[in-house]
Order: sequence, then structure tokens, then C-alpha cells
Amino acid sequence: MTAANPLSPTLELTLALIREPSVTPFDADCQDLMIARLEAIGFVVERLRFGEVDNFWARRGTCSPVFAFAGHTDVVPPGPPEQWAVPPFEPRINDGVLTGRGAADMKGSLAAMVVACERFVAAHPDHQGSIAFLITSDEEGIAVDGTVRVVETLEARGEKITWCLVGEPSSTDAIGDVIKNGRRGSLGGVLSVLGKQGHVAYPHLADNPIHRVAPALAELAAERWDEGNEFFPATSFQISNINAGTGANNVIPGQVEVVFNFRFSTELTETVLRERTEAILNKHGLRYELAWRLSGQPFLTAAGALVDAAVASISAHTGRTPALLTTGGTSDGRFIAPTGAQVLELGPINRTIHQVNECVSAADLDTLTDLYEGILQRLLAK
Amino acid sequence: MTAANPLSPTLELTLALIREPSVTPFDADCQDLMIARLEAIGFVVERLRFGEVDNFWARRGTCSPVFAFAGHTDVVPPGPPEQWAVPPFEPRINDGVLTGRGAADMKGSLAAMVVACERFVAAHPDHQGSIAFLITSDEEGIAVDGTVRVVETLEARGEKITWCLVGEPSSTDAIGDVIKNGRRGSLGGVLSVLGKQGHVAYPHLADNPIHRVAPALAELAAERWDEGNEFFPATSFQISNINAGTGANNVIPGQVEVVFNFRFSTELTETVLRERTEAILNKHGLRYELAWRLSGQPFLTAAGALVDAAVASISAHTGRTPALLTTGGTSDGRFIAPTGAQVLELGPINRTIHQVNECVSAADLDTLTDLYEGILQRLLAK
Repeated sequence: MTAANPLSPTLELTLALIREPSVTPFDADCQDLMIARLEAIGFVVERLRFGEVDNFWARRGTCSPVFAFAGHTDVVPPGPPEQWAVPPFEPRINDGVLTGRGAADMKGSLAAMVVACERFVAAHPDHQGSIAFLITSDEEGIAVDGTVRVVETLEARGEKITWCLVGEPSSTDAIGDVIKNGRRGSLGGVLSVLGKQGHVAYPHLADNPIHRVAPALAELAAERWDEGNEFFPATSFQISNINAGTGANNVIPGQVEVVFNFRFSTELTETVLRERTEAILNKHGLRYELAWRLSGQPFLTAAGALVDAAVASISAHTGRTPALLTTGGTSDGRFIAPTGAQVLELGPINRTIHQVNECVSAADLDTLTDLYEGILQRLLAK
Repeated sequence: MTAANPLSPTLELTLALIREPSVTPFDADCQDLMIARLEAIGFVVERLRFGEVDNFWARRGTCSPVFAFAGHTDVVPPGPPEQWAVPPFEPRINDGVLTGRGAADMKGSLAAMVVACERFVAAHPDHQGSIAFLITSDEEGIAVDGTVRVVETLEARGEKITWCLVGEPSSTDAIGDVIKNGRRGSLGGVLSVLGKQGHVAYPHLADNPIHRVAPALAELAAERWDEGNEFFPATSFQISNINAGTGANNVIPGQVEVVFNFRFSTELTETVLRERTEAILNKHGLRYELAWRLSGQPFLTAAGALVDAAVASISAHTGRTPALLTTGGTSDGRFIAPTGAQVLELGPINRTIHQVNECVSAADLDTLTDLYEGILQRLLAK
């Protein structure tokens, strides 16, 4: 880079954010960088630290509707440094590609949000409603002191988000080609099937829990839980872990533990999945203990002003018509959608996230800034 | 105990053997004690040490038929000493019960064999055929340098055992109520079913090996392998261990490992079991690796002079008619039977073997001495 070819404000801020080694759940000084910029353009900032997690809620304006950018400053660990082409927290731009931990997930998005606001506020100092930021440093970790706690704080005082744009890297092959307009629910179970331990030479004195559970697992794996719908693929059941046995090859174990997970659509509910699972286990006459854990309800923003604004902005700046998809893992959108907010995710290409040499097209981050600004204009310009 | 109530020679020798802490595979000085007694009555003793395992072959006489006592001087570890009523290697006799590690498995039997020979030889110095001892210190362990190596040595020089009486504790409720006249075969398998690792949120990009193997395991567990026969219970299949998963609850594992074991009758063979197992796995379209290990062929001594002598001796000394059974774990008989020898197991009540406070009735060991001597008389007296 030379003085004749200065970096855009979005790229400058992206590089500055990546230089902060904010491995989850630590923010380093990322939020300070963002807050200074937002306060300079009239945001009122509320720092919300829970446990060792830094969060903040920033708002410009007091009226409804409330448009909120949501995102996280924490990144996943860089992995083996020697496998990186550049030091993971010393980002570089080479041949138009910005490489560094968090480039795509999601410090580039955070920079684009801030710069889009700076531009929009400069042009529309008296915009309608409010603009807000809901930022956490605990999205990549256990996520118990992050967005969920900020949402609780807002809910407790009746402060509502109308539209929420999460900066998760949603794009697949080109910037803006995919908007995530929902996520499947995630429901986990830990199943312990009980038998009776014994010696393999005396099977009549034992009760092999592996033999008992096998046909039930076969049935659960073959079950068609639903057919999905226009926005959701069919609900899927996956066993992630199964363990039984003492290690000795002549002992029938006393129990087997099975860990499984549902990713489920809006066609059915947590309650239905629990009932149907237990009905299958009961049909097979198993003695068992089963602990359930709901990681996230499914949510869907099928249509509305936010979808319209995002699609129009993408079309205007890129000529693309984005696909609305609900595939992939969970995001913090699961905590915001239950408040009644319309929630979308829009961010850069996600191909390299969580990998060594995480990277993003520098030009895409500038385009993303345009997309975000275009959405603000469509929703809040007077 | 007082001078007015001296211990029998069998009990004296049992106590001396238990005082040697011969935790498998170490003999301590047990074999020296036995060898001194056997050499004194005309046995020619051949020490056969393989690796760190002491074995010996002793023979009195050069002619056929050859009657061999077989047994082991090693014992299983005593477990928590504080749970023992007496120190495990400081045996005591209280109220007619001899307690100590190895009392039942099988130092009492070894003492009874030696004393039975002493009496028999005193009465029949010119007995028919030969009397022999095949003794190892590696029956309770991995059993690779024990009886199997001694048998190889004998086979290599064409030395044959006609009748073999193994001193394993066969009795269930009363001394002599059960003779083991065979053992099931033991065939183990380690099955690795291959899939493709992935994220539970993207199941279409992965291939869950737990889901693949479940119906095959259900079928293997439900299969009726045979009906057994007059001497053998039905062949049994047991899965002892199953393991898959990274521990994380959002990762579909790349493979699952299943450890299983057959205990099989003489109605089918190792080859048949392997073929039928693989046919089931193949029917389910699994990609797998399968390592087989044969621990022992089944064997059976259904009838003959040895069975007749043992049954008659038990009947004469106890009034009981012993049951001929093949139940239970494997024994070193599996290594001797394939040479063509008739093999029986006859020893004390096995209720406490491998437990803390292992014990045996003192009177039963004297009766066992009578039973062994009676068998010698019936087979080798002139």
C-alpha cells in the first residue's frame, strides 16, 4: 500500500480490529475502538460486562423503529501459527485479499457497520427511529454471558429491536449472494441406557445395554422427522458420541451413553421432538435416563421491511438477487428473534472462517459497507 | 490348631503355597515346593521357563498311557488388602474354612494333586503308564508363555498326553458336583465402521458411521447362531465395547469402533462365525475393517475312560453323580485338548474365586485329594 493508494475507512478499521488478539471470550480493545467511533457520531453507549465478557449496547435516537446491527468482537483461536501465511493477528492485504484471524468472522463486518453508520449519519443526521449496536465478545464460546444477557437487559426495561442485522458471514460464492433469514433450532440429548454388567461367558446373568439400544438407535436414525418447508431443510437427527465398555473385551458393560442432536425446522417443536424420541425409546422397552438441552429455538424472518430493504440494497449495489437460506449452524440471532424482532444475517464470504489463513476480499468489505448503508437508507432515511 | 489336631498333608501344602505371593505371571517359589515333593517320589522334572514365566513338566514313568495333572501356580491380584479378613498371603483356617488368595483357584488343587500322587505311588510304585504334571505360572494373565508353550514343546518331540485332569475349581455347591468336560470356543472381533466426519449442522456433507452400524448391530445381537447341543449352551454374541465421537456434541464422528466376542459351541466353527458375521455387515453396506482373534477352539470330552474314572471316583467318595458341563470361561484345557488328549476339569467350589476373601472348605481339599487318588487308581493301578 502506498500514499497514492490509501486504504478505505472500512479496511483501515478492519485491520485495526484484527490487530487486537481477541480470542474468545476476550475483547482485547476492539469494543473501545468501535465505541470511540460511535460516540463521535452521537451514539449513547452502555457497556454491559457480564462475568469476563465485554458487551455493549449503543443507540442513536430514542424513537422507534429500532434498527440494530449485531455482532461479536471475539474470534476463534488461530490454530498452529506456523500454518499461517501471515501472523494471524498481523493482518496483510496482498493482491486484494485481506488475511488475518477474524477477517471474515466478523471484524470486517463490524468495520463495515461502523463506516456505514458514519456515512449514513453524515447524510441523514435526523434519521427516523433509532440505530443501535448490540456487540458481544462471547459468540464463539459458550455464549452465556454475551448476547443473551444483553437481550435480557433490554427486555427487562421494555426496550425493543424492530429490525436486527447480524454481521455473520452469510455469503457463499459472491458478496450478497446469500442472506440467512432464519436458523434451525438445536436440541441436544444425553441418553444413558441401563443394563446389567457381567462376564461375556455368562450372558444370561447380564443384560447388555448395547444390544438393547442398537435397534432403538437404528429406528431413530431412520426416522423421517418432518419434510422441512420452503425455508427449512428437513429436521435432522445425528448421534455425535456413543460410548460403552470397560476396555476389557470380556466384560458386558452396565450402561451405554449416547449423545445426539436435533437441528429442527419450524415445522415441529422441541416438545414434539422430545415426545417422539421418548416414544421410540419406550417402544423398545429400554431402561434409560435422558437429559435434554435446548441450544436454540428455530426462527424465521420470512418477509417484511427488513427482508425487502436487504434484497433491494443487494440488488442495487451488486445486481444479485440473494437466496434466503436457513442452513448452517446457530448464531446469536437465536437470542434476538424470540423478542419479536425481524432478524437477518448478512456478511462476507464464509469459505475460510475458523480455518488457518482466514481471509476476505478487500473489495467485498467495501461493498458490504455499501450494502449496510443502503439498508439503513431504505429503512431509516427521512 | 494344636498338636492334638494336626493339619492334613494337603492342607499343610496348600498353606505353604498360598504363603508364596505368586501374583500372575510370577511363580514366587511355588513350583520349587511342588518339584521337591515330586522328585522325592520318582518324578523326572523338566523346568521350562519362557520369557518371565516359570513352567514345568514332570513325569513318572516312560510308558503310555500318560495321565497328566495340569494347573497353575499364579493367582490374580488380591485387590484392596483392607477388604480382606486375613492378609491375602497369610492364609488362615477358621471354623473349617481356609481363606487366602489362591485357596480355591488353584493352590488347594495343586496340593491335592501332589498328595494324591504321593499316596498312590506309595501304594502302587509300579503303576501302569505314566503320571505327569503340566504346571504354569501364566494362566491368569495373557497366557502366551505358559501352557501353550509347554504343549508346543511336548508336541515337537511327539510326547502325548492321554488323559489330562485340570485342577480348575469346577464345583458349584458341593465338592465334585460338577465336572467341566469341555469349554466353549472364544472368538473376538474388533470392528471399525468408517463414515465421514462432519458438522452436525451439515449432515448431507458427512456420513454418520453410528447411524450406519446401528441396524447391523441390532441384527447381530438378535441373531440365533445355533441351538447348542447336549453339552453346550447356544452360541452367544456379546458386544463388550463401543466407542465413537470426539467428545464435542456438534461433530459427526468419522468412525465407530465395536469390540465383540463369541462364545461358541461345537455346533459351528470359527470360519462359519466369521462368514456369517461378515455377511450381515456386508448386507448393511458398511465400509469396515474387522480384525479377528481366536482365543480358543471349543473342545469336548464327551465320554471315555477319563470321564468314567472321574464319575466313579466322585460317586465312591461323595455319593454324588457329577454334572458334566461346559459353561464358564476359558481354561488352559483349550491348549491341551487340540493334541487329542481327553481333558476334564475337577476342583473345589468356585464361588469365591477372583474375589476378596477367596476361601475353600478345608475338608473339601481333603476330599479332593481322595477324588484325585481314586482317579489315578482307576486309570493306572495294576
